[in-house]
Amino acid sequence: MSLITVGTMAFDAIETPFGKTDKITGGSALYVAYAASNFVKPVQQISIVGDDFPEEEMAELRRRGVQLEGVEIVKGQKSFFWSGRYHEDMNSRDTLVTDLNVLADFKPVVPESYQGAEFLMLGNLSPDIQLSVIQQLKQRPKLIVMDTMNFWMQIAMPGLEQVLKHVDMLMVNDAEARQLTGQYSLVKAAKTIMTMGPKYLIIKKGEHGALLFDNDSVFYAPALPLEEVFDPTGAGDTFAGGFIGHLAKTGDISFENMKRGIIVGSAMASFCVEKFGPTRLKEISKEDITSRIQQFKDLVSFEIELL
Amino acid sequence: MSLITVGTMAFDAIETPFGKTDKITGGSALYVAYAASNFVKPVQQISIVGDDFPEEEMAELRRRGVQLEGVEIVKGQKSFFWSGRYHEDMNSRDTLVTDLNVLADFKPVVPESYQGAEFLMLGNLSPDIQLSVIQQLKQRPKLIVMDTMNFWMQIAMPGLEQVLKHVDMLMVNDAEARQLTGQYSLVKAAKTIMTMGPKYLIIKKGEHGALLFDNDSVFYAPALPLEEVFDPTGAGDTFAGGFIGHLAKTGDISFENMKRGIIVGSAMASFCVEKFGPTRLKEISKEDITSRIQQFKDLVSFEIELL
Repeated sequence: MSLITVGTMAFDAIETPFGKTDKITGGSALYVAYAASNFVKPVQQISIVGDDFPEEEMAELRRRGVQLEGVEIVKGQKSFFWSGRYHEDMNSRDTLVTDLNVLADFKPVVPESYQGAEFLMLGNLSPDIQLSVIQQLKQRPKLIVMDTMNFWMQIAMPGLEQVLKHVDMLMVNDAEARQLTGQYSLVKAAKTIMTMGPKYLIIKKGEHGALLFDNDSVFYAPALPLEEVFDPTGAGDTFAGGFIGHLAKTGDISFENMKRGIIVGSAMASFCVEKFGPTRLKEISKEDITSRIQQFKDLVSFEIELL
Repeated sequence: MSLITVGTMAFDAIETPFGKTDKITGGSALYVAYAASNFVKPVQQISIVGDDFPEEEMAELRRRGVQLEGVEIVKGQKSFFWSGRYHEDMNSRDTLVTDLNVLADFKPVVPESYQGAEFLMLGNLSPDIQLSVIQQLKQRPKLIVMDTMNFWMQIAMPGLEQVLKHVDMLMVNDAEARQLTGQYSLVKAAKTIMTMGPKYLIIKKGEHGALLFDNDSVFYAPALPLEEVFDPTGAGDTFAGGFIGHLAKTGDISFENMKRGIIVGSAMASFCVEKFGPTRLKEISKEDITSRIQQFKDLVSFEIELL
């Protein structure tokens, strides 16, 4: 089954307590593509870059079965650039620079060849852009998952509420779920969000794992306790890519299979943080992924006879 | 198998965003006893109270198989009193009052009838008191678990390091594990702690669950996502009581059985926070506990075929 991913392809400059990068490739759609392409082909990418975006990166994505027809390359302009510095605890960061560049005028066009995709991953972008992609699809995908962030809740809440009515799943972090609903309890926040449109909700809690909700059930997947988180940039998008990649591979959108998707996504995210940017995602093999998923099974498995 | 628990029996006055109590009973050993007595009898309590401590509470504990021969009642003096106010997020609190009262001169004496106990739970007390209990035991228990807190790391670190050499397991929260070792990464903190004496370590992460480490393995148990945390007071001690109660019931100190102990402890803690103080722990039945443990199984269970 095919998967459309919409999001940024960009440059990041990252500082962590472990070191510092110059401009390296990044962006939500890039991470989603690297993660998802381990499981499903084609990944049909929709994004925008300047003519400074490296052709080697494009070639590497194509080699992995990522279609780039939906990636607009704007001549004479620069790609989106973000620079940030992580604090000692790696859970918080300061944004140093945000240069929208080509992103300022992003009006995604869904290529004819992408029509009919069964899965759609809407990365964090303005609600207008997210909605425009949904509206261009002639056939509604089997599953539409969207990410968003607090910024859009502050400046574009009506638009965000509109998109929420059209998606099957919202995937946000705990702070975003709280801000969106004004509820501190994640269980209450989940109930509120499921009245806003989505039938499913994933709340990402970083080093504390992830929660999956539908109306009746909840699933809690841990994060792998890591000796070192080298660079958390892209971990959430990598999680999303692994999750929806697994679902698109299997074509199964049952709650049980979403649980598996979360384990796959968590495994992918645990690789992402091991090196700067998407470096580690380009190195890992199928065997590495299988062995990491086994670690997750071992991490949470227990047998208990009820008293 | 029998279990000795050492800790406070006290009065607490609690404010949460949901309400406020007058003085109610509390203390680490009280919570441990209420939780553990569901699984093992006798629970052999070592503590100290003033003559203001309610006889009904003592009677209730006895009814549950808690032996109180090791609880000193000091005539004409008051029980330990703590008062605190929880913040909106329930993860942090301000201490308003700490009146040590009888606790200032606590010199625990292990009754002869307690000798031979296979399990020992050392609640959070000064390292000197914890060590004195260990030294009074003629036969070393099969498993010694200790709790502690940042306060002792600040004022009694040499004593704390001494006790650590004599115990099998340390059970602390994430902030305490970090403070004890100077390591932010919990995996690194765990490795450091296991060079200090304990063979096992449990790191309690509150709403984010708990981690169990030994030298080779790690287990991550989630916390049940709750609609409302009414009052977190005593949740950590209730977790400890459920954990060691299960171990003492089964007599099995394998890593696999410790995992089960953590699930039992987590289930007990999830009851504790539903009402003020130990109220909820006095209400629940065996059936409630079984059904809650089933919820934990459902919460984390997944099946995945490796690719």
